Amino acid sequence: MLSKNEIKYIQSLGHKKQRDNDGLFIAEGPKMAGELLNSNFEVSDIYATTQWISNHKHVSGNITEVSLVELERISNLQTPNQVLLIAKQKTLQQEPVLQNYITLVLDGIQDPGNMGTIIRIADWFGISQVVAGMDTAELYNPKVVQSTMGSICRVSVWYKHLEQWLPKIDVPVYGALLHGKSIYNTGFVNEGLLIIGNESKGISKEIIDYITHPVTIPKVGHAESLNAAIATGIILSHLVKPPG
Amino acid sequence: MLSKNEIKYIQSLGHKKQRDNDGLFIAEGPKMAGELLNSNFEVSDIYATTQWISNHKHVSGNITEVSLVELERISNLQTPNQVLLIAKQKTLQQEPVLQNYITLVLDGIQDPGNMGTIIRIADWFGISQVVAGMDTAELYNPKVVQSTMGSICRVSVWYKHLEQWLPKIDVPVYGALLHGKSIYNTGFVNEGLLIIGNESKGISKEIIDYITHPVTIPKVGHAESLNAAIATGIILSHLVKPPG
Repeated sequence: MLSKNEIKYIQSLGHKKQRDNDGLFIAEGPKMAGELLNSNFEVSDIYATTQWISNHKHVSGNITEVSLVELERISNLQTPNQVLLIAKQKTLQQEPVLQNYITLVLDGIQDPGNMGTIIRIADWFGISQVVAGMDTAELYNPKVVQSTMGSICRVSVWYKHLEQWLPKIDVPVYGALLHGKSIYNTGFVNEGLLIIGNESKGISKEIIDYITHPVTIPKVGHAESLNAAIATGIILSHLVKPPG
Repeated sequence: MLSKNEIKYIQSLGHKKQRDNDGLFIAEGPKMAGELLNSNFEVSDIYATTQWISNHKHVSGNITEVSLVELERISNLQTPNQVLLIAKQKTLQQEPVLQNYITLVLDGIQDPGNMGTIIRIADWFGISQVVAGMDTAELYNPKVVQSTMGSICRVSVWYKHLEQWLPKIDVPVYGALLHGKSIYNTGFVNEGLLIIGNESKGISKEIIDYITHPVTIPKVGHAESLNAAIATGIILSHLVKPPG
């Protein structure tokens, strides 16, 4: 049974201010719980239904059994799903390693669902480093966390002032621009940044000149544009060498 | 000035039952309005702010000026955007033409945002035909309409009982399966169906045997899966020949 204060506190972690202050975040559902408990994230609290607890007898930690009604009150999901975790935000100790890796750069991705989906795509393509501009959605926003579908455990995200960070970079910088080289002709690459622009404004003026290798997804039909996450998936599928 | 009954009626078109009954749907914002007014959809009513009206003096039709407060009351958007249209749903007179075209088949895409995004991707790749299983989201759901970003004007969507329709098909049937041929090796194709499965369950058992050409997006990293719309974009970018 949760006290009023506990409920209030968990709900408060839905707000960035409280998350920043306490260095915590929330993740929900059996899939996310499984991923987080097997990752190097430190889980501080688990609130779960009888069902989840009886299916996860091997899990140790600070587990509180909650009723469905209680779970509904603390959940950020439309359909609460068995378990809610509170975990510690990571402080990255190192800078991203740019040589011999592909690193995604997010220039103002603002929709949390897009941000999470892009992290999931990065993970699919074996990219473990993302550098986000300061106006990009917050990694620990519950909607970002959930839409990574667990990939938040394998992809590190640094926040940088891109216009100060990019001038120091000495690897190729790819970015989708209207008159770039067709992605059908770039060939696979094994080192560099790929900049993904804002959903409606694209890559911002301040950093566009740092792109050394402009690329384009040629349009066959008539849609004006592609969603930022879709474009990320398509470009990566042409730049990243498949296994084997 | 809108009457209470008008407001109530427009709001009721947010519900499928009313839309089906009256054969109408709602589209919002200057971008959608521009696309619909230039398409073969029949627009029956336009509710717009002074701003939109003064920027679109050439537009004729049944235009009602509304205040921002009124627009908020009739809008389905979080941030209402200048104009709301009521348009007539299309009754498709013909069956899809499968020879010499690529046709997308949606097997239970349930999230309206995914459905709309997939229609936008189809349009980008010059695919103008989509066949949707009966358990796929409704085309005229406001969230589907908006996330097509206007591509609803160029892509026709048929609803079919797939397990009855697919047996009659005599073109290649592509579908993403775990052990299919890598999309890096399929080459471009100019005819066939591409089946996209449900977001969590994939392609359903009942129709999986109709796939003649299983394909796979090889995984480089560790994400368990890709979102259905992302997978659609990636596969199409490898199957559809780019222009030039």
